[in-house]
Amino acid sequence: MERLSRELAFLLTLDRLKEVQRQSYTLAGRHENSAEHSWHVAVAAMLLSEHAKEPVNLLRVLEMLLIHDVVEIEAGDTYVYDEDARKKQEEKEKQAAEKLFAQLPEDQSRHWWELWQEFSAGTSPEARFARSLDRLLPVLLNVATEGRSWQEHGVRASQVLARNAEVAAGSPALWEVVQKLVAEAQARGFLASDGETQAPKG
Amino acid sequence: MERLSRELAFLLTLDRLKEVQRQSYTLAGRHENSAEHSWHVAVAAMLLSEHAKEPVNLLRVLEMLLIHDVVEIEAGDTYVYDEDARKKQEEKEKQAAEKLFAQLPEDQSRHWWELWQEFSAGTSPEARFARSLDRLLPVLLNVATEGRSWQEHGVRASQVLARNAEVAAGSPALWEVVQKLVAEAQARGFLASDGETQAPKG
Ligand SMILES: [Ca+2]
Repeated sequence: MERLSRELAFLLTLDRLKEVQRQSYTLAGRHENSAEHSWHVAVAAMLLSEHAKEPVNLLRVLEMLLIHDVVEIEAGDTYVYDEDARKKQEEKEKQAAEKLFAQLPEDQSRHWWELWQEFSAGTSPEARFARSLDRLLPVLLNVATEGRSWQEHGVRASQVLARNAEVAAGSPALWEVVQKLVAEAQARGFLASDGETQAPKG
Repeated sequence: MERLSRELAFLLTLDRLKEVQRQSYTLAGRHENSAEHSWHVAVAAMLLSEHAKEPVNLLRVLEMLLIHDVVEIEAGDTYVYDEDARKKQEEKEKQAAEKLFAQLPEDQSRHWWELWQEFSAGTSPEARFARSLDRLLPVLLNVATEGRSWQEHGVRASQVLARNAEVAAGSPALWEVVQKLVAEAQARGFLASDGETQAPKG
């Protein structure tokens, strides 16, 4: 029962991920939180695993995606285009993972730590595919909301391509999708090209 | 590419689950939505599968839980203690599933339909365990928020026990947890016993 009590307490701790706000917008026009993002990206894995570069163990992909953001409960979310913050974030997230996973029974703690490390380092076909999806979703949502969060942060096409180039390592087919979406966003005028100081609205 | 386009369009349709509001409250005190609930219950499966009544294929459990509520995009959420609404809801949800899953490539459509049917009917150890978790989470959240949604709907202990009795079919250990939580909620005065018209607050 002690074991079960710890697991249930941890489940309640995880509830806090529902309050971590991301920069992305849902199609209904509000900021997305990290818990619903984690669901969306896990469902994406179910739908898109056939497009992974290498064959993947779907269970491993789902487990990684379901927990990939839980460190944000302690460390907060970092915007993917904020380069400075991203570097400091790495150390903060590692400490957060240690603190959080220590709440679990030892075997589970080790399992979660391994999943999180594998995802963070992209050291397996499963991790690389999972990372591709984690990149793809914000691009999809941005294009579906006419670049709302890109516009708010003055993000340019070259940045989107640079930050998402690793999609190719997990799925060449999805990298092709990202490139097409970026070109479409530029053509429709809601993603600035280099040289432009701001994307022309409308 | 036609196949991939359909999958991506469906992913964007699924975004709408983030706007389906449930009666449960998050620990931060706002209504939970069905997308973040689906994440929470999937993570619960990762943590608690060792307590399933029979050995379960975790991948199957996760896939069922990730999609179990997507029909609500079309059919809306029904409060678990609203008996009349629940009966009408069954037919509505079946129609919603048909409509939604028809958007997928045929093999995927069949896979999602099978997962959803298996979950709804509780016809496998995986489905019964998944259903246990889907029942457990609202009870956990209710107790952690001093019975907030129970109080709002005048729900009594006997109703909570009756509606959640099927937890035992998926996990006797979790059914024991539910019974203890109900007793605790009664003792602490935020879940009415039979005979009381309303739970005494405080
Ligand atoms: Ca993410």
